[in-house]
Amino acid sequence: MTGDGEHAGVEVVGILHGGITVSDMDASLAFYRDGLGLPLQVDAIRDTPYLHETLALPFSEIRYVLLTIPGAPGSYVELLEYRGIERLPAAARPCDPGSGHLCLEVRDAVAAHARMTALGYRARSAGAVDVDSGINAGGKIVYLADPDGFWVELLERPTNAEVRS
Amino acid sequence: MTGDGEHAGVEVVGILHGGITVSDMDASLAFYRDGLGLPLQVDAIRDTPYLHETLALPFSEIRYVLLTIPGAPGSYVELLEYRGIERLPAAARPCDPGSGHLCLEVRDAVAAHARMTALGYRARSAGAVDVDSGINAGGKIVYLADPDGFWVELLERPTNAEVRS
Repeated sequence: MTGDGEHAGVEVVGILHGGITVSDMDASLAFYRDGLGLPLQVDAIRDTPYLHETLALPFSEIRYVLLTIPGAPGSYVELLEYRGIERLPAAARPCDPGSGHLCLEVRDAVAAHARMTALGYRARSAGAVDVDSGINAGGKIVYLADPDGFWVELLERPTNAEVRS
Repeated sequence: MTGDGEHAGVEVVGILHGGITVSDMDASLAFYRDGLGLPLQVDAIRDTPYLHETLALPFSEIRYVLLTIPGAPGSYVELLEYRGIERLPAAARPCDPGSGHLCLEVRDAVAAHARMTALGYRARSAGAVDVDSGINAGGKIVYLADPDGFWVELLERPTNAEVRS
């Protein structure tokens, strides 16, 4: 223990990014930047000592992309393409423990489903689904697979939702 | 296509949550709520038609938890425990395509590493690592495994970082 009170946790002060490991950065940029429309902020090659110490993995370099999220200043989608190391597919069903997904808010989930499926990407549902209960009742939802099978949830909040602070 | 311009993407307007599928919600609450200190907002059982249509999975119900993120109003960590369906471990190394991680900002990464490892959780590094380059140079970073092997990155930003808007 670090001396804090027994009920005190780590002092978390924000969310910085949702990170997704990709096999082919160009294919992932087609999905996230060109398909979802997230603006590119950084596209760089990284191979610095702190990354090897942090990750404890013998990669040669990482192609590292940060995409901004409109409406969420300071938060990003981070895409990582590891190079020079064996890589195994980590795609899983949404029910499989240890898997993650990222939920982005969209203005129009019907249009988003139509656009992304027209581009050849796979949604788990035939169309945007009406949310029938919970804090987003009245909204619409889509679960999309990115090119490596990571799940991106797109949620259109109900029109009567409170304005986010 | 949906009629928007060829360079227009989906209109993303925010990030709502990072979602993590867990095998045992109580064990995950020990990590995220008690260890990291994220406040609990919702802990409920969900089994409604829209979830089955959205996810296309024959689960019986989902134990669904929303944790708030101090400093990020409107954004959440969502934990999902699927029940009544076969579940396979999806844990992977950070380099494996299709895997995700969630990056949370912390006030003190050294204290966070000490606290979480004292609680028995695994970090990939022996201590908090100094960030030597990039937009967070001067900060400190830790990669932690949650109870199902999902990676949570804790980042202490450099003290000279611009205040987030």
